[in-house]
Amino acid sequence: MSVQAESDLLEQVTSHAASKPVHETAMKAVVYAGPGKKSLEMRPKPQLQSPGDAVVRMVKTTICGTDLHILKGDVPMVGSGRILGHEGTGVIESVGPAVLNFKPGDRVLISCISADGTCEYCRRGMYSHCLNGGWLLGNTIDGCQAEYVRAPHADSSLYHIPPGADEEALVMLSDILPTGFECGVLNGKVQPGATVAIVGSGPIGLAALLTAQFYSPAQIIMIDLDDNRLEYARRFGATSIINSSDGNAAKTVKALTGGRGVDTAIEAVGVPSTFELCEQLVAPGGIIANIGVHGSKADLHLETLWSANIAITTGLVDTISTPMLLKLVEAQKLDPKPLITHRFPLDQADEAYDVFSRAADTKALKVIIEI
Amino acid sequence: MSVQAESDLLEQVTSHAASKPVHETAMKAVVYAGPGKKSLEMRPKPQLQSPGDAVVRMVKTTICGTDLHILKGDVPMVGSGRILGHEGTGVIESVGPAVLNFKPGDRVLISCISADGTCEYCRRGMYSHCLNGGWLLGNTIDGCQAEYVRAPHADSSLYHIPPGADEEALVMLSDILPTGFECGVLNGKVQPGATVAIVGSGPIGLAALLTAQFYSPAQIIMIDLDDNRLEYARRFGATSIINSSDGNAAKTVKALTGGRGVDTAIEAVGVPSTFELCEQLVAPGGIIANIGVHGSKADLHLETLWSANIAITTGLVDTISTPMLLKLVEAQKLDPKPLITHRFPLDQADEAYDVFSRAADTKALKVIIEI
Amino acid sequence: MSVQAESDLLEQVTSHAASKPVHETAMKAVVYAGPGKKSLEMRPKPQLQSPGDAVVRMVKTTICGTDLHILKGDVPMVGSGRILGHEGTGVIESVGPAVLNFKPGDRVLISCISADGTCEYCRRGMYSHCLNGGWLLGNTIDGCQAEYVRAPHADSSLYHIPPGADEEALVMLSDILPTGFECGVLNGKVQPGATVAIVGSGPIGLAALLTAQFYSPAQIIMIDLDDNRLEYARRFGATSIINSSDGNAAKTVKALTGGRGVDTAIEAVGVPSTFELCEQLVAPGGIIANIGVHGSKADLHLETLWSANIAITTGLVDTISTPMLLKLVEAQKLDPKPLITHRFPLDQADEAYDVFSRAADTKALKVIIEI
Amino acid sequence: MSVQAESDLLEQVTSHAASKPVHETAMKAVVYAGPGKKSLEMRPKPQLQSPGDAVVRMVKTTICGTDLHILKGDVPMVGSGRILGHEGTGVIESVGPAVLNFKPGDRVLISCISADGTCEYCRRGMYSHCLNGGWLLGNTIDGCQAEYVRAPHADSSLYHIPPGADEEALVMLSDILPTGFECGVLNGKVQPGATVAIVGSGPIGLAALLTAQFYSPAQIIMIDLDDNRLEYARRFGATSIINSSDGNAAKTVKALTGGRGVDTAIEAVGVPSTFELCEQLVAPGGIIANIGVHGSKADLHLETLWSANIAITTGLVDTISTPMLLKLVEAQKLDPKPLITHRFPLDQADEAYDVFSRAADTKALKVIIEI
Repeated sequence: MSVQAESDLLEQVTSHAASKPVHETAMKAVVYAGPGKKSLEMRPKPQLQSPGDAVVRMVKTTICGTDLHILKGDVPMVGSGRILGHEGTGVIESVGPAVLNFKPGDRVLISCISADGTCEYCRRGMYSHCLNGGWLLGNTIDGCQAEYVRAPHADSSLYHIPPGADEEALVMLSDILPTGFECGVLNGKVQPGATVAIVGSGPIGLAALLTAQFYSPAQIIMIDLDDNRLEYARRFGATSIINSSDGNAAKTVKALTGGRGVDTAIEAVGVPSTFELCEQLVAPGGIIANIGVHGSKADLHLETLWSANIAITTGLVDTISTPMLLKLVEAQKLDPKPLITHRFPLDQADEAYDVFSRAADTKALKVIIEI
Repeated sequence: MSVQAESDLLEQVTSHAASKPVHETAMKAVVYAGPGKKSLEMRPKPQLQSPGDAVVRMVKTTICGTDLHILKGDVPMVGSGRILGHEGTGVIESVGPAVLNFKPGDRVLISCISADGTCEYCRRGMYSHCLNGGWLLGNTIDGCQAEYVRAPHADSSLYHIPPGADEEALVMLSDILPTGFECGVLNGKVQPGATVAIVGSGPIGLAALLTAQFYSPAQIIMIDLDDNRLEYARRFGATSIINSSDGNAAKTVKALTGGRGVDTAIEAVGVPSTFELCEQLVAPGGIIANIGVHGSKADLHLETLWSANIAITTGLVDTISTPMLLKLVEAQKLDPKPLITHRFPLDQADEAYDVFSRAADTKALKVIIEI
Repeated sequence: MSVQAESDLLEQVTSHAASKPVHETAMKAVVYAGPGKKSLEMRPKPQLQSPGDAVVRMVKTTICGTDLHILKGDVPMVGSGRILGHEGTGVIESVGPAVLNFKPGDRVLISCISADGTCEYCRRGMYSHCLNGGWLLGNTIDGCQAEYVRAPHADSSLYHIPPGADEEALVMLSDILPTGFECGVLNGKVQPGATVAIVGSGPIGLAALLTAQFYSPAQIIMIDLDDNRLEYARRFGATSIINSSDGNAAKTVKALTGGRGVDTAIEAVGVPSTFELCEQLVAPGGIIANIGVHGSKADLHLETLWSANIAITTGLVDTISTPMLLKLVEAQKLDPKPLITHRFPLDQADEAYDVFSRAADTKALKVIIEI
Repeated sequence: MSVQAESDLLEQVTSHAASKPVHETAMKAVVYAGPGKKSLEMRPKPQLQSPGDAVVRMVKTTICGTDLHILKGDVPMVGSGRILGHEGTGVIESVGPAVLNFKPGDRVLISCISADGTCEYCRRGMYSHCLNGGWLLGNTIDGCQAEYVRAPHADSSLYHIPPGADEEALVMLSDILPTGFECGVLNGKVQPGATVAIVGSGPIGLAALLTAQFYSPAQIIMIDLDDNRLEYARRFGATSIINSSDGNAAKTVKALTGGRGVDTAIEAVGVPSTFELCEQLVAPGGIIANIGVHGSKADLHLETLWSANIAITTGLVDTISTPMLLKLVEAQKLDPKPLITHRFPLDQADEAYDVFSRAADTKALKVIIEI
């Protein structure tokens, strides 16, 4: 490279960094401190490391069920000292010289998946399997429950917030809405006039419920053990709700669907029994779309299913539907706001975790942490 | 209905039947006589029962692995006294008045599935789930291992044999070629340049192997325990063959695919271990297409597969690809002939069953019974 | 065929006909009498002619724009003496012996397309090109604007009316709703969050507008020359309406879509200028879905479109979406009722035609004729 | 950005550039000098300009029909002084700091399309419409007919050459093979057993012919005015060839397809008459896939096509199929070599252009320029 070219590149880098005052070098962050422990700590502010990076000043973040798993020590890849969180909105602080689509001051949505956009998996729309990315934030690199975060592969992993949008509501587009939509609704090929059952009426199941309605199914049957969550489901558009504690869910679904079962059965819990329930619910020609994070195997009843012309799909969210979801929020076809039940400042992150982790008692769905 | 209309309809019926001499009322047939037993018997020739029926004089038929299951008593729906067989070619003897596309004397291929073409499942291409049909021949009604057979829903279930075609070869299009193609290749979405593994190198697995080549995959890896069948596979176009008796098949497939696994894993055996092997073979973003008839459940390892963006498909053959397969045979893009290893006259049906059931010894793939 | 089988078939035929009293042999019908002429005449009641036929006592019918074309002499295939009409609901009077799914007394919706369900085109879902059917009623055989109609291929061409349904509203499912949906919305691949323009706000364009909403597009822009029809469009869910009489429609659409144009442009008029307008409206990667019946060629501007990655689709309605539309009406996701603006008894068919043909003055959309 | 981060980035940049000796600053290049003129000139070697750039030392390049258009002055965007060419293979000389997948010394295939991989069009697979890229090389920036070229967006626009591959053959994957495959075969949805007509048997039409065979169509009918090119077509796998100079091509195609016409008609010329011929060739339910670069409008015969259930597609090549094509070359399912008829050193670029531009006389398909 010529000296001129090098110094051009350097200038690009430095011009973005120039505005940052020297004293702003520390920030507050929610840090994982080994199984069962987390703390709000002062940490160095993140810096650009690669030309495609952006550093984002966080405005809103939230807590995911996965964060609770990390805290329990169930996600061994996450080491002690890691800043938690993979969701949120913020303002671009600085960008590396390879970033084409963002500049300091831009208000952005942060996707839970960081994707290079160019590897063989990204080209197939499988951002979650990106060879240079995937689920990084709050997992293999520091995350979003902090005043600042470094977002790798900014061009493929951040999204402009439309002018006038409700930024808090958009936090739901970092993870749960694309997860429910892609893994549940798109994989499950929900169709106009079709029948859908969603097993699990937590935030992810409700995200599937909200986004299934884009395709005008005739029935969306929501199944859970918690009447409170089922009440949310009814309010969010379920045509029927079933408390499965009596063990008759499969029978009830058959009765509601003329004996056929459902065209799409969405698993949004992550234990063998709920997956196996889906095997009973699905109609010939139907699809079981798994969203749940499973820790153990399930029984696949091929002795009945082998001839049923069904499909089963699995998958991590790829967040490739984020642009579509943003348009739907803008067009007021999707309102993520009712998924948010509680709000806390960053200093009360402990309370936020407590409320979120005791959802059955607190009736929490998603809690917003305001930075 | 007017008297004129009635007599018109009657005339249609009688004109088709007129050519049948009175003395031809009995025929030879292979009859299931309860678990472990079958016999070649004289039976009344079948008659038209519904306006959409055809009666076909059989010319060639064959034996399916399913027939062996029936003989073992594994298919309780099949009662003693049932004429076996659901495959073959023949000549139309008579047709009911609603049959639009066939007339006596037409040479036809008989599909293993009888479909009305109009029910909600048929409209979705799921002929195997036809509300007025499905797998009937040699199952719930008398079958094809006889001198004559009654074929219900003739217009949707029979196919004209192209002039000059090798009728014997076309017997392979009654069941195994559409089964391998639809349940394995089409469900498995085999693509140009992709990698395919087929577990099971029997007739159905070989049918999948032959038809997978329509889509020019880069690799087709064939896995079996029987070196003889693997040798057939190599001859039929497999790019690699693996004898899985050493327990290293998954490792070998990974080595052959740059560590990724295969885009399509086709299960063509029907036992838990082969299905579970497919779970190890499939690459992220890939498909497990099940063809095998399973008698028991398998372990589905959701603890690893939940995040793998895979799909699993099941299904009975719908025979909706039969017109396409006929065109491919005509265009010499598909040669089913090498699947046929033995031929017997109907009087030696016992020998035919014996040879077919001892395939490991006899090296039989498909045996033709000439009527 | 045996004598027994024949007499069984005969009995089937006669048993269905037995209930018909001898004196009911004539009926009223709207008959085409050559260009510019039609009359309400007494005609013999139709009889079953083929085993798959049904005779239906009409309850409601309607007039299609195509009927006006016939009256003008624009459809030479339709000869003088033909009973008009291809839409409606009624009650089954009698069925031929091959009819599996209907019996006398069943309340049915009549599809404008009669399809055998088994020919090569029907198997591909192209009922409009059925080798033994297609658009027959009121075209090559007598139609629905009469007290009775013979419906060929009843199993593939009639639909059960759900209990409690509004039969009048369902008349809209004979033709215009599946036409707008299949040729406009499905061919146009309307997606959640996408942008749609519909050129032509007559009944067919409005049917596309109603059914496009199944897929939650962000914008549906309706374009017409008639403010009254655009007012209907706004009421039916259009997000923008454009009176194109000022020649600026393309410019306005570009302004409404951030300069991109629309993902789906639906042509619902049938003249070169409206098709050519769609060529200007469509965004890179978009689709022009033609519904209009065209009498002359249009200019295709390949000098700009060759590199635009667009698709253009054409097609007659296949009515394969009728079962889906029926489910959507049942589920109250689709209300066809507002398409009906006027009602007349059969004796006032002349007035019905007059009102419908002067839609600009009468503000008529669809007129119901009650039999 | 911290000083440390900045200097890290700088180091990345400089380390890649360090190996380049100072004296290598000029190179030979084929330069467009205004309508009708080109010359082989000395030009400064290109430098990295953006972090995602690579500079490639060219090894093989070729001439495209588009280069001839540029020379005629038909592509006004290309100004005098532009280095021509958008195809070729080479060796990476240097890469910018954002390039993840390539390093100096890597042997690469250069795609004719440069794509950022992250804009809204790239995410939809429409690389040709990339908001920061598209067809740049030899068009809006200097191209490949030179000793060196700067390749923007290297990660999405270059491809590793498999070890042992024939690099010359791979030059065909820069443009014509993905063009024929994507715009012709994929857009045209060529299926096993289907019928295909390709109008135009030049290099692009032949590329469509070669790649159509991945899907095992029953018939591929090749149509051209030049017997020599039709002879190539026969050798490359056409099942029929038609010299259309007698004006009977449509009639002949109908005769070859049982009166139906073809399922896929591929336009590979770019003039109105060949497009209009495709309108006559396409069967009901079929697709016209346009590849040709058109300079004027064509007549679209909607008066017959409106009811034919057809689709017409257009599009620039997106080169998203390049990874698939590379796998197919590796697997020996595609041999691009026979497309190459002549070879010249860079110093004889004039002769190369002369031979290529007089293809009817020289029987040239593609000419290789060796750098």
